[in-house]
Amino acid sequence: MTLRSWLAGADDSAFSVHNLPYGIFTTADRPGERRIGVAIGDHVLDAGAAARAVGVSCAVLEAPTLGPLMAAGRPTWRSVRHALTSWLTQSGYAKAVAARLVPRSEATLHMPFDVADYVDFYASEHHATNLGRLFRPGQEPLTPNWKHLPIGYHGRAGTIVVSGTPIVRPAGQRRPTDAAEPVFGASHRLDIEAEVGFVVGTPSALGTPVGLKGFTEHVFGVCLVNDWSARDLQAWEYVPLGPFLGKSFATSVSPWIVPLEALEYARTAPPPRDVEPLPYLDDRGEEPWGLDITLEIRLNGQPVSMPPFAAMYWTAAQQLAHLTANGASLRTGDFFASGTVSGPGPGSRGSLIELTWNGQHPVKMADGSERTFLQDGDEVLITATAPGPCGSRIGLGEVIGRISPAQD
Amino acid sequence: MTLRSWLAGADDSAFSVHNLPYGIFTTADRPGERRIGVAIGDHVLDAGAAARAVGVSCAVLEAPTLGPLMAAGRPTWRSVRHALTSWLTQSGYAKAVAARLVPRSEATLHMPFDVADYVDFYASEHHATNLGRLFRPGQEPLTPNWKHLPIGYHGRAGTIVVSGTPIVRPAGQRRPTDAAEPVFGASHRLDIEAEVGFVVGTPSALGTPVGLKGFTEHVFGVCLVNDWSARDLQAWEYVPLGPFLGKSFATSVSPWIVPLEALEYARTAPPPRDVEPLPYLDDRGEEPWGLDITLEIRLNGQPVSMPPFAAMYWTAAQQLAHLTANGASLRTGDFFASGTVSGPGPGSRGSLIELTWNGQHPVKMADGSERTFLQDGDEVLITATAPGPCGSRIGLGEVIGRISPAQD
Repeated sequence: MTLRSWLAGADDSAFSVHNLPYGIFTTADRPGERRIGVAIGDHVLDAGAAARAVGVSCAVLEAPTLGPLMAAGRPTWRSVRHALTSWLTQSGYAKAVAARLVPRSEATLHMPFDVADYVDFYASEHHATNLGRLFRPGQEPLTPNWKHLPIGYHGRAGTIVVSGTPIVRPAGQRRPTDAAEPVFGASHRLDIEAEVGFVVGTPSALGTPVGLKGFTEHVFGVCLVNDWSARDLQAWEYVPLGPFLGKSFATSVSPWIVPLEALEYARTAPPPRDVEPLPYLDDRGEEPWGLDITLEIRLNGQPVSMPPFAAMYWTAAQQLAHLTANGASLRTGDFFASGTVSGPGPGSRGSLIELTWNGQHPVKMADGSERTFLQDGDEVLITATAPGPCGSRIGLGEVIGRISPAQD
Repeated sequence: MTLRSWLAGADDSAFSVHNLPYGIFTTADRPGERRIGVAIGDHVLDAGAAARAVGVSCAVLEAPTLGPLMAAGRPTWRSVRHALTSWLTQSGYAKAVAARLVPRSEATLHMPFDVADYVDFYASEHHATNLGRLFRPGQEPLTPNWKHLPIGYHGRAGTIVVSGTPIVRPAGQRRPTDAAEPVFGASHRLDIEAEVGFVVGTPSALGTPVGLKGFTEHVFGVCLVNDWSARDLQAWEYVPLGPFLGKSFATSVSPWIVPLEALEYARTAPPPRDVEPLPYLDDRGEEPWGLDITLEIRLNGQPVSMPPFAAMYWTAAQQLAHLTANGASLRTGDFFASGTVSGPGPGSRGSLIELTWNGQHPVKMADGSERTFLQDGDEVLITATAPGPCGSRIGLGEVIGRISPAQD
């Protein structure tokens, strides 16, 4: 039996009752009052108000942040989701709950969670191979460790911003081609990376790895990420300690956190691994955590790529197992991103440096102009959907950002 | 005129009235009540209680964390320091204030601040040269960017722990010498890195670099850091995106944050730069932010090295200017560490990999045993002092940690 909402239009939406993602919103009449919202159709449900309206006491929904819900753990996540589903499907609740719906156009969406530590992985074999060819020409594109461990690095948590935040073109050091010395100035090679992000709910103890089986216990939900990248800054700085200022100026995330449960129908086997994983990463006996999420990238409204998340070599469960294998603890709000999602073909790459092959094959825009890297005023939109039950689609929402000119 | 405290022994201590570092403490009778403490002699002043005792209302001292004081900015830092100095030097305050002193042996010291983002730099030319020789033999030890920018990377904020926290030997992937494939297990090459850390107080806006002149406006104080490092994990994982699990299992910090003002007499010119810095890093027209801090490393009580912080090529002011040059914002609690402090000579190196030259020249212990890297049960103590006014010494306290066996 398919679940149906009493809310008109919700069943045909990517925000149907099969999805129910969480966010933080305000409304113009109460701009200082942040509330937990749940996306349904083209509305936002004021979740705390809905709980009160149906006579339920639910502190985690009445909080001004998602922190308490995220920290509460999977049994609570499941029961809250069950309650929300009831309220939005059973006609007996319709009158009370409908009064707590806000049209999405009237809601201002905020950063959905407080980021603790942020780790960015590098889990697409296609992306890593492309970047290796471009950054280290003449060498093996994949480093010897790549198929043995999910490579990652810590990024800057304090500059993660919600979708819609303007992105100021960063300045920094870059070394022009054939120059001996670097120069300082605005980046000439501002790029995107389309990624999927995973939000940690329940913490773990220092010294205790969570393992592959800990994934569903610890991970609250999923969102979209644009890991803005200044390729010229990155190329000059990243040897030997990795990306720093080429990434740390801004990372954008979508405002809706899709619960892991909503992606149950999207689970799929990851690509075959041609190197046998060490036991702590060996998921061959586990239910697979590959995810059949299809991303779409639009540049100034024009579709330029459809990266397939199912093509990622390393799964998020493997990434979490690796991240904690040395005993590193998790905190509520820890956030890890997949790395750029790139598929095998030119039309499925997740960054401009790959799509234009380092600027050699510019993207042709509808207005006749061309793009290698981003120009001031350009707007990048990333959206994604995944299969849900009964032919439905689970929407991951969107992450959008427009480039502002560099300061000075 | 030299300032003198009415507290016996304080003037001859590295925690004299010229220092006045801040920490967070509890006492056995009120274990759940975290309070701001100020170290003086061999006592901890309960700063909030002292304020109340002298009839002053001071919310930032009565808080359970240093966050409000750190966020309040330099004018507040200066006036609070001025008040504390008065209370501890003027005899009229002695009776009321002395009643709010706790013997340091009766105080439990906690993590002194909530870490926002953590960045680890790599600012010692001697250390970077040594590591380059050891990790990349046969190549130029310094990468071409090294003298143009202070190289750094983001570390894991959530695993920064206060001095005294046991350090569990991490497990992870390492590739044994001459092996084709990696193995998983406890690190065989667990090392230290003696560093100096800088704690950000006042935040900055996204998109706005703080520059060299912003250093004193934004940086609240200084502490000691032991950046524990699993060299075998690090060597296998760090190409191409930098250190990750080789560092993220734990970073220890000293419990006292020494105010920047207390290091005024330690300021010194950094070493001559043999590459002209780009303008945003050019401190030649500024008051120098080299700091004449001398560290000492003891392994199981035995002195093994005295690293000189004055030998660091890049200053903390340059590191902060670089960190924000791309518009990255600062938050209260952001923390950046200097990188391993190594001087030119073998007795001044800040890590065992350098002191033992990759294990080739073990450190001889008093009991006849030898160390290349750390064994279970080993205890590492890092202390430091800097010159203060009138021949006094400013103590940075200590950071200590003992190695526990790996789990399983």
